[in-house]
Amino acid sequence: MTDEQELGITKSKSHETGEWYAEVVQKAGLADYGPDGMSGFIITRPRAYALWEAVQSYLDSRFKQTGVQNAYFPLFIPKSYLEREKDIVEGFDPEVAWVDRAGRNELEEPLAVRPTSESIIAPYLAQWIRSYRDLPLRVNQWTSVVRWEATETKPFFRTKEFLWQEGHTAHRSRPSARQEMMRRLDQYVDTYEDLLAIPVLRGAKPEHDKFPGAETTTTVEALMPDGKSVQGATSHYLGTGFAEAFDITYTDENEINQPTHTTSWGLSWRALGALIMTHSDEQGLVLPPTIAPTQAVIVPIWQSETKAAVLEYAGEIEETLAAADVSVHLDDRDDRNPGFKYNEWELRGVPLRIEIGPNEAGEKTVTLVHRPDGESEMASRENLVSEVTTAFDRIYAKLYAAAEETLNSNVRQAMSRDELLGTIGRHGGYVQTPWCGEEACETAIKDEIAAEIVMVPLEEEGIHHGHSCAICDNPATKTAYFAKSYWNTASIIILHCR
Amino acid sequence: MTDEQELGITKSKSHETGEWYAEVVQKAGLADYGPDGMSGFIITRPRAYALWEAVQSYLDSRFKQTGVQNAYFPLFIPKSYLEREKDIVEGFDPEVAWVDRAGRNELEEPLAVRPTSESIIAPYLAQWIRSYRDLPLRVNQWTSVVRWEATETKPFFRTKEFLWQEGHTAHRSRPSARQEMMRRLDQYVDTYEDLLAIPVLRGAKPEHDKFPGAETTTTVEALMPDGKSVQGATSHYLGTGFAEAFDITYTDENEINQPTHTTSWGLSWRALGALIMTHSDEQGLVLPPTIAPTQAVIVPIWQSETKAAVLEYAGEIEETLAAADVSVHLDDRDDRNPGFKYNEWELRGVPLRIEIGPNEAGEKTVTLVHRPDGESEMASRENLVSEVTTAFDRIYAKLYAAAEETLNSNVRQAMSRDELLGTIGRHGGYVQTPWCGEEACETAIKDEIAAEIVMVPLEEEGIHHGHSCAICDNPATKTAYFAKSYWNTASIIILHCR
Repeated sequence: MTDEQELGITKSKSHETGEWYAEVVQKAGLADYGPDGMSGFIITRPRAYALWEAVQSYLDSRFKQTGVQNAYFPLFIPKSYLEREKDIVEGFDPEVAWVDRAGRNELEEPLAVRPTSESIIAPYLAQWIRSYRDLPLRVNQWTSVVRWEATETKPFFRTKEFLWQEGHTAHRSRPSARQEMMRRLDQYVDTYEDLLAIPVLRGAKPEHDKFPGAETTTTVEALMPDGKSVQGATSHYLGTGFAEAFDITYTDENEINQPTHTTSWGLSWRALGALIMTHSDEQGLVLPPTIAPTQAVIVPIWQSETKAAVLEYAGEIEETLAAADVSVHLDDRDDRNPGFKYNEWELRGVPLRIEIGPNEAGEKTVTLVHRPDGESEMASRENLVSEVTTAFDRIYAKLYAAAEETLNSNVRQAMSRDELLGTIGRHGGYVQTPWCGEEACETAIKDEIAAEIVMVPLEEEGIHHGHSCAICDNPATKTAYFAKSYWNTASIIILHCR
Repeated sequence: MTDEQELGITKSKSHETGEWYAEVVQKAGLADYGPDGMSGFIITRPRAYALWEAVQSYLDSRFKQTGVQNAYFPLFIPKSYLEREKDIVEGFDPEVAWVDRAGRNELEEPLAVRPTSESIIAPYLAQWIRSYRDLPLRVNQWTSVVRWEATETKPFFRTKEFLWQEGHTAHRSRPSARQEMMRRLDQYVDTYEDLLAIPVLRGAKPEHDKFPGAETTTTVEALMPDGKSVQGATSHYLGTGFAEAFDITYTDENEINQPTHTTSWGLSWRALGALIMTHSDEQGLVLPPTIAPTQAVIVPIWQSETKAAVLEYAGEIEETLAAADVSVHLDDRDDRNPGFKYNEWELRGVPLRIEIGPNEAGEKTVTLVHRPDGESEMASRENLVSEVTTAFDRIYAKLYAAAEETLNSNVRQAMSRDELLGTIGRHGGYVQTPWCGEEACETAIKDEIAAEIVMVPLEEEGIHHGHSCAICDNPATKTAYFAKSYWNTASIIILHCR
């Protein structure tokens, strides 16, 4: 196999989306599959880990600006702790990996590898919180968690171990806790829209699909190019139920013991899956400049007699951009021709290529080529930094606009069961429909076409007013957003399920 | 128990160092012990996790400036992978925690919870490296690892799960790999000396105490206040042995297959243990301003008639400092008196207290009180930022000087076995002694007084020239640094042992 063949993406994004995605992940050097005996695990290579670091850095600084502190709780959770939680909530036992022996001994009590950390965090919150002075208390941790799911692996979207953050907060009042839930949801929306260039919908899960124990589960939903919805992050208001079960109480100013109102919220590396899938194409990875580890690559084009002048000028350009905090790389390899370099950097998703040949060196210009669409423009040495920055903004805007166009043209309406089934079947995307609020009506659709209600609007807005449920004809109380999603209801709450 | 009693440290640093340390860790809110059934694990509370984040941020930015990329490898390692490694190296099997069942099934092959990641990283390095163009290759990961040690827990110094980074690199040549080993060692030294204010010794481990498989193991050693040495971090040059075992090879310019020269290096949260133990005192935690999450706390002192003016002025001071990137907190709690606040912030290790009463408000001054020694000085509003910055520098210098004084006055020499035993027995600290290089001579001392050779100088320097071994009288070839250490030889290589 020649280098060129090895580099190329061979699958079609529109017709073989899954295979195309897997090929981009592997050929762009983002992740490898785990070793034999560890199917469902991936090796996160530096190019992908740098993307996760960018998400962490973006979100973590916003968390800290809004009162969140990071902590670290153990990787293991005693079985009895999980069982204490099971009294409140059931359902994730089958996904747990267990440690029964360590050192040379059988353990007295099996330890779960954390699938989520509520059950070990809660007892410590209960210890740390004594009086109203300790509230609100907000802790977050960035860790990996393990869920032994049997279904097929898709790097970043679905793996047995995944990286995420989980935040847990306790408050004096319902308004304070609900505000917290919404603040975190907003920060997740910003992460998708301002960092990843992916417009999203925000909404609430229907009653029957909430995080178990939650009073409200809010969600960020992103539309993938194949018309399916991905749950991008969730934020829950847990009422006082969780606090009552775990004794997370405080004494108020009158020395009276009160339960706290708690929230939890999480975002996983599934965000990277959405990023890769949304923007990339059949030349490989596409990244917005906001998150690209290398924002611009300089490819010099020389003949032997022009090499010295071209490289010297290219070096100056690199220096100027680096001094302005542009993450730039000068590809001065001798043993690769420019065409090879173009392909390689396109595959790897560098947003902007800067071509420099003898003409550019002579005229003190550069040629800027946008990764997403190949648009090329001349820029002057003199205004280099501002022209490059403008190019970044334009590239970001193009990616966002394309994703927005896809989203907007894929929110449709259906006022009857047949219309709903037909629209989802033909187009995918989201279908707004008047809904009575009963799970049975969702089940009826799900059984026929494997679409489900991914969200309802957070406010009273919607198309249901004055209409009857599209499925059962009873009065509609909500507007449901039906969509096919990457996983069914049981697993769609992977970010926070139990 | 009143708040005051609960806050106070009751143990003596000099006479009950271990108990005092445990008390500081718990009362300063750094860590809690794990739940029942999980002895040996700790809960890392936000105040301690912020310290770890500071270490990460310091070291990670230096790693990245010098060509290191972060990656993430799975938490689990198949048994057969560990066994492949065992052909090279033996010894950490007894410390491994095993997953035998997950989901509803017994696993076909047991999975180890990673005790260190060489055996899963190496096969991927072997895949990723094809030609000389791919070298040097440097990957690092920040994770937790699990070692099921039976001995007593000491938060940050010795826990069954601990946070660390492990770096792995591959190079074309021995000089390039040895330079890498030294560069990482230097970065560890800088972390201790410039961030943690702990002067350290750097050296090599004796032949018989190297990281198994290593050609050279280098170490950073820090002296604790009770006269014992702590191994602060290690950096290894592994020669080509590891690469040969794992097939980490490259083709050179002549298309000839060559083994790479590899290194590995690690620093764990034991650095936090050394930090806490070195500087803290019987009022609680002491931190240098370089790492303190809160560098300065403003404590306003008012009577009812002066409250408004004092608080307004204190708010201005806070704003000025925050604008200058000083991490400052204004403690304006109504229900605590200044004395209580002083004690609490001292316990928590805030390096600088800024007292503001009616006098200060009237004269546009502040009173600065240094945490380590209570030194107090007046500073003007006008030069506030520069005076506070100077105070930080002076506090740092005091802490460093005290630790340096302890170190310098505890490096002694012994030219005979009796002198060696007597000096270590009486004073602790490091004893330089001429040594023949044989393990038997170390064992003879270890059997008698539980001291060992923690390092030998990296260069030929030392006191052995022209002398005979202090223990066996054969010609001395090296200068050995004997010391008691927190753990014996087997476990002192906890940072990188197998």
